[in-house]
Amino acid sequence: MADTDNQVSGFVDSTPAPNPRALLLAERAKGQFDPNKMHIFLEETAEKSRSFKRLVQQLDRDPILATGNKYYDLTKDQQRENTAVRIARLAQYIENDSQETWNQRVSLLSVLDPQTGTRIGVNLGLFLGCIRGNGTFEQLDYWAKKKETGQLKGLYGCFGMTELAHGSNVAGLETTATFDKETDEFIINTPHIGATKWWIGGAAHSATHCAVYARLIVDGKDYGVKTFVVPLRDADHNLMPGVTVGDIGAKMGRDGIDNGWIQFSSVRIPRFFMLQKFCQVSREGKVNLPPLEQLAYSALLGGRVSMVMDSFRWTARFATIALRFAIGRRQFKSASQADGTETQLLNYPLHQRRLIPFLAQAYVFSAGAWKLEHTIKSTLDTLDAAVAAGDMGKIMKSVNDMKSLFIDSAALKSTSTWLCADAIDQCRQACGGLGYSSYNGFGKGYADWVVQCTWEGDNSILAMSVGKPLIRAAVEVLKTGKKQKGSVAFLNEAKEWANDKLVFQTADELLEPKNTLKAIQVLMTRVALNGAEVLKENNGNFDAVGAPSLVLSKLNAHFYHLNEFYRRIETNEHKELNSHLILLGKLHAASFVFEKFGGDLLSNNIVPPAVLNEVVNKKLPELCKQIRPNVVAYTDSFMYSDTFINAPIARYDGNIYENYFDTVKKSNPPENTKAPYSAAFETALNRAALEVRERGDKSAAAAALLSK
Amino acid sequence: MADTDNQVSGFVDSTPAPNPRALLLAERAKGQFDPNKMHIFLEETAEKSRSFKRLVQQLDRDPILATGNKYYDLTKDQQRENTAVRIARLAQYIENDSQETWNQRVSLLSVLDPQTGTRIGVNLGLFLGCIRGNGTFEQLDYWAKKKETGQLKGLYGCFGMTELAHGSNVAGLETTATFDKETDEFIINTPHIGATKWWIGGAAHSATHCAVYARLIVDGKDYGVKTFVVPLRDADHNLMPGVTVGDIGAKMGRDGIDNGWIQFSSVRIPRFFMLQKFCQVSREGKVNLPPLEQLAYSALLGGRVSMVMDSFRWTARFATIALRFAIGRRQFKSASQADGTETQLLNYPLHQRRLIPFLAQAYVFSAGAWKLEHTIKSTLDTLDAAVAAGDMGKIMKSVNDMKSLFIDSAALKSTSTWLCADAIDQCRQACGGLGYSSYNGFGKGYADWVVQCTWEGDNSILAMSVGKPLIRAAVEVLKTGKKQKGSVAFLNEAKEWANDKLVFQTADELLEPKNTLKAIQVLMTRVALNGAEVLKENNGNFDAVGAPSLVLSKLNAHFYHLNEFYRRIETNEHKELNSHLILLGKLHAASFVFEKFGGDLLSNNIVPPAVLNEVVNKKLPELCKQIRPNVVAYTDSFMYSDTFINAPIARYDGNIYENYFDTVKKSNPPENTKAPYSAAFETALNRAALEVRERGDKSAAAAALLSK
Repeated sequence: MADTDNQVSGFVDSTPAPNPRALLLAERAKGQFDPNKMHIFLEETAEKSRSFKRLVQQLDRDPILATGNKYYDLTKDQQRENTAVRIARLAQYIENDSQETWNQRVSLLSVLDPQTGTRIGVNLGLFLGCIRGNGTFEQLDYWAKKKETGQLKGLYGCFGMTELAHGSNVAGLETTATFDKETDEFIINTPHIGATKWWIGGAAHSATHCAVYARLIVDGKDYGVKTFVVPLRDADHNLMPGVTVGDIGAKMGRDGIDNGWIQFSSVRIPRFFMLQKFCQVSREGKVNLPPLEQLAYSALLGGRVSMVMDSFRWTARFATIALRFAIGRRQFKSASQADGTETQLLNYPLHQRRLIPFLAQAYVFSAGAWKLEHTIKSTLDTLDAAVAAGDMGKIMKSVNDMKSLFIDSAALKSTSTWLCADAIDQCRQACGGLGYSSYNGFGKGYADWVVQCTWEGDNSILAMSVGKPLIRAAVEVLKTGKKQKGSVAFLNEAKEWANDKLVFQTADELLEPKNTLKAIQVLMTRVALNGAEVLKENNGNFDAVGAPSLVLSKLNAHFYHLNEFYRRIETNEHKELNSHLILLGKLHAASFVFEKFGGDLLSNNIVPPAVLNEVVNKKLPELCKQIRPNVVAYTDSFMYSDTFINAPIARYDGNIYENYFDTVKKSNPPENTKAPYSAAFETALNRAALEVRERGDKSAAAAALLSK
Repeated sequence: MADTDNQVSGFVDSTPAPNPRALLLAERAKGQFDPNKMHIFLEETAEKSRSFKRLVQQLDRDPILATGNKYYDLTKDQQRENTAVRIARLAQYIENDSQETWNQRVSLLSVLDPQTGTRIGVNLGLFLGCIRGNGTFEQLDYWAKKKETGQLKGLYGCFGMTELAHGSNVAGLETTATFDKETDEFIINTPHIGATKWWIGGAAHSATHCAVYARLIVDGKDYGVKTFVVPLRDADHNLMPGVTVGDIGAKMGRDGIDNGWIQFSSVRIPRFFMLQKFCQVSREGKVNLPPLEQLAYSALLGGRVSMVMDSFRWTARFATIALRFAIGRRQFKSASQADGTETQLLNYPLHQRRLIPFLAQAYVFSAGAWKLEHTIKSTLDTLDAAVAAGDMGKIMKSVNDMKSLFIDSAALKSTSTWLCADAIDQCRQACGGLGYSSYNGFGKGYADWVVQCTWEGDNSILAMSVGKPLIRAAVEVLKTGKKQKGSVAFLNEAKEWANDKLVFQTADELLEPKNTLKAIQVLMTRVALNGAEVLKENNGNFDAVGAPSLVLSKLNAHFYHLNEFYRRIETNEHKELNSHLILLGKLHAASFVFEKFGGDLLSNNIVPPAVLNEVVNKKLPELCKQIRPNVVAYTDSFMYSDTFINAPIARYDGNIYENYFDTVKKSNPPENTKAPYSAAFETALNRAALEVRERGDKSAAAAALLSK
């Protein structure tokens, strides 16, 4: 420990004070690559990397937008107000931002203040996304531009999909939109408590309009769920007649969002408030149905991209916290520690294994997130162009691409958000007690995060929706040889792998990028084929293959992420980074694929038991050890400022204890030595003896008087 | 659906309202065993079952102690006050309770209000536990009885073990207790920031005294960490001179506990405030050291029992919530659903597999928890008797029993609290969005729970402490044939299993209780032997075997729980319950042992791949299906009242939607249609156009004026 850098030194009966800062600085100085270049890999292009840094600077310096330790002490009501004030501030930025800049700003905002991000996202992402996906170009232009919703101005939309008794089952929603031919209106109605719109972000306090998912009823016939724009509040922000709205109240996390419930009691809207890109009702009540019902849910695709991107950014944030702490923190004397000081946490092999895989996860997720963003954008653009041109052939082609996208994005959303939740939890545990302190961000972080595993499609349900087409395609290939396209195209090789032939014979072979990808595909093939057997035994009832579907979905997501990650390395301009990147890819595969699916790997004969054993017990710790010296460089490469990290145990300067103690004292001034309720507590402690308080009624004297 | 029981019916454009109540009641009526008898199994004896019901009734009806939906809306400051008021109320109960009744009362309180439980537990369990474990009988009598601490009266203690820079490494604590021969006092001192006592429950506002862990320094020599009673506040509740105390502030959960930090600046205490059962300092400064340093930590053993007991009770609570919801909730139309209604969640095989194992976990944990409680009590009593008799031989025998207990309790504490955390999280996810609502208990439940994975020994560190003696014993048996005793005695058969002989050949065989136990022991043996190999390769550095140690610790805990669970079934008085209990044991083993350790099972050749495959993909779903019809009976058997469950989606009456909607409305009256901050939000929404707010500075007219 360098004494010169030792900011605090005890002076009575003193062992030397800990000096975590020196440890972090020393490791930073020894980094073997340039974090600025690595940042370009993570943010995909030099331009986005530059823009990232500019936006972080703006966020850091804006006292309304920057969060800090105060963020962790806000009550629910304060959080609600806080997000509203931030939205007002952001409304000033959006007027000057390009679409790209704004998107990046919101993506970054979602790291340090997810609830504000969501509260805006419901309006711009879901409400306008629903209009974009389901409305005509004129409808979009009207609500987004003419009414200025797109500028966080005039109107504020919410997204009325889920109901109290219907979350994931959108097709089963029970709110009705009955066409009244006489007045050329729809009557929006909530028939019973189960159909109450529930969880609607922004409904309680903010929203003026709602994109309502309701069953279209014309002449007594039910045409299924369609979308309608329904005004909730007038220009004075008073609720419209027939609209009942309430606050859903306290939540596990994201209390800054005013989620609400809505009941419609015969609310009338003009016919042209129905979103009618794909589905139209004529003045006479003739209904024109869309080519694919799922088109109505395309609004949700954007959310899935954000969630995969968030999974990258959040894993990065929490891995950075736990890793920086593990570098500065010493605990126990290791046998290998020669100098008698305690060992840095991150020098313990178990601690490396607990944390370094999450570093790998963040990097690998970054690649998949960017790819998904591009794919969704191009698919939706192509669809829009086809619709604009009225080209039914191209529309159907887009619909097919969309189906592939629904598979991949469902797998990615569910798997990535689950793994990120796990990362936050594990990183918290790795920080011991200090991870449980609100000021280090894990508590609110976890609570805010985990809703991502539930909203916009419960992860298990989404995963099942991935397994189904995979199992079906595997059966088709084997039975009819029908050529598969898109996400399931790899199953065209199913015949080759419909056996128990060992696929790889050594650990090194298995961890080679292209082999890793092959191993995952073969494993998916075999799991799908086993699933097909179970399906047959259960007369084609897909409910019976829930468990293998879950496995397929997770493997599919890992394949997508790793495939793109390795592709990005191949085309990487800064070749000197590649050896450092490959280590992360291999660690991700070893840890999240091979170790986690060890039982599946062996029972499907992908490798012999000894190879799995070697991967898990030798390669995995070796990879961690190889990555260990550059952990500071890897985490610095995320380029998260202290405002972003918002955890005093993990600031850039590494001064763990001083920073954290300082935060605790600022937030809870120690000069308040008595609690506001102290008198009540003291009174109880100093209460009179029991017999006095019982008025001596049980005393011997009383007994003598009262006994016979 | 029985119409007569349909409490709510829509009447406009209406599909029938959901009727979850009818579903729950119908299943309850069909239960195949008596929950009252099952409750005796869960609470161990008929007497404890009766007493449980009496205590629940008292808690339910006491308006100060009963929690309710308001509990979920309290701010941190309100929670602090709330717990203090409850403690005052409980102080009235403790004066009339027997020790057994009080212990059971606190154990139950920890389910519905864990923070009050902990705030008391720090005082009675840890502070007094430390005095009981380390002080003389006279010292215990003085502080517990004469000063009435044991009656929540007069004094209030806290437990000063952890420091800012030292959590798990108790031996490395840096607070000093320097003997001043001249005044016959110890000087307690915090040398630097890292030695600040941190996380001390009760220190911020409540505690008058602290059991301080500090290095004993006599004549400049450091004798290691010993325990001292240090007064913090005087009778007016003012801080003593030299004592600096602060509030640690907001936490992930348990905000009702006033955790604090303490710095001692040369605080003097009389020599007889040192706890001196095992270690004494004479007037002349002669030091008498204890026979085993670990004896000083026996205060923590009681905490481990509570945490295993809590793991049973909490798993039971959250499994009940998710299972009752899954019975009343319908979602999607399954192919197998003949009547056209949607399918009950719990009829989906995947949903059964997500939830029913946690039911099994609760039952299996109950057995292990009771056993651990008895074992710790008898071990500590035996030790106390030996100490009282001054019998060194018996003391050393107790010390050996204590070592076994440290292994088992470390494995049980870490494994059970981890699995319970997972149970809460999975149960929440299984309730979809409604699981994220605060009012259903998961959010606060999870946040309150997970500190159990960290405090009183970080789970990973504890698990490593289990692996070490197991690996060491395995090596001894193989090398020297030395006979092992206590928890590691099963390793005496290590030679027989030091090979790759398959242990079981069929799934049915594996799931037989005695074979399951054997399989776990053989797996532990082989993992320990592999660990020994790795250890050798790393020159005996135990840091290298962290990962296998974790596996060993978890398997050890499962063995303990299952072994006791199956033993209890064998001796069960109500034999008619046994077939229902065995199913749960098998499901626990299939799910938490065989599925979860599938990779280890195969790579250690316990069974062939096809058997694992059958257990995971056939037996596991089959067991769930067999348990399914009695899920209501199994959950009712916990005998948790609605106050205990405190989740409107899971009340006994099954009226999910009405109960929950009613709670939300009561907690957030819908007549408040505008937020308190609405004006600010509306102003932003209705702001003037950008060019107006920019004063037209960028207009064409301005450009003409300003351009050259």
